[in-house]
Amino acid sequence: MPDNDDAWSDGALEEIDESECWRLLGTQPVGRVAVIVGHYAHVVPVNHAVDGRSVVFRTAVGAKLWATHHSNVTFEVDDFDPARRDGWSVMVRGSARELSGESNPDTVRRIGSAAPQPWAPGRRDHIIRIVPDSISGRRIRQPG
Amino acid sequence: MPDNDDAWSDGALEEIDESECWRLLGTQPVGRVAVIVGHYAHVVPVNHAVDGRSVVFRTAVGAKLWATHHSNVTFEVDDFDPARRDGWSVMVRGSARELSGESNPDTVRRIGSAAPQPWAPGRRDHIIRIVPDSISGRRIRQPG
Repeated sequence: MPDNDDAWSDGALEEIDESECWRLLGTQPVGRVAVIVGHYAHVVPVNHAVDGRSVVFRTAVGAKLWATHHSNVTFEVDDFDPARRDGWSVMVRGSARELSGESNPDTVRRIGSAAPQPWAPGRRDHIIRIVPDSISGRRIRQPG
Repeated sequence: MPDNDDAWSDGALEEIDESECWRLLGTQPVGRVAVIVGHYAHVVPVNHAVDGRSVVFRTAVGAKLWATHHSNVTFEVDDFDPARRDGWSVMVRGSARELSGESNPDTVRRIGSAAPQPWAPGRRDHIIRIVPDSISGRRIRQPG
């Protein structure tokens, strides 16, 4: 499928380079994880953080679900200014992996402190890391 | 798959009733259309409007693509307040249909005037309507 099949990628928009995409991902406290459930995309906001070249977040559910159903995930972050009618969107595609006790303890500690405590109540003891296959971003900027 | 498999639906969050979901959908100028492309969800921000019990938006691409690849679509709108650590998310699942010239002209006029002109540059002559199969919403509200 060509890349120009949606309202955000018809060539009239500025592409955002990869390092700027990663920077922008870290500027927002909320992103959206999209996974395929049945015949639909399922879109869930999460409080995330950027750890190196990956995205981490906490969740109440663990490895099994993510490993079984959600190995392919899309993560989207955007920001818009209605007054200026501009904004940007960054999309990461990758695979979701739970950080397990078998991981390197230093890695667990570093990511554990990076992954923010979600605003949602309840225990969220599982840390999921999205390892990216691709990242892309687009920006709307009004002329003048 | 049970509905309690994500960070936003583990019972610690308030469910939003249907009429409030529809109201909230109309409060934001930007929503996100998610469709399945290959093995990933593809997430694209659009400028939308609510028309009755459907969501409409303009796009640069037409019926064929939406009909072929995007008949099942998810539409998500959210809003968060980082200072208060609260917010809400509404998700519509449905089918996308282009409003064609064969539609009732009154319908075309009404939706044509409801569907906002996108902030993105370029011609976006196609109006897509998402006919909902389901709508759901959840709210985080901090105690106290």
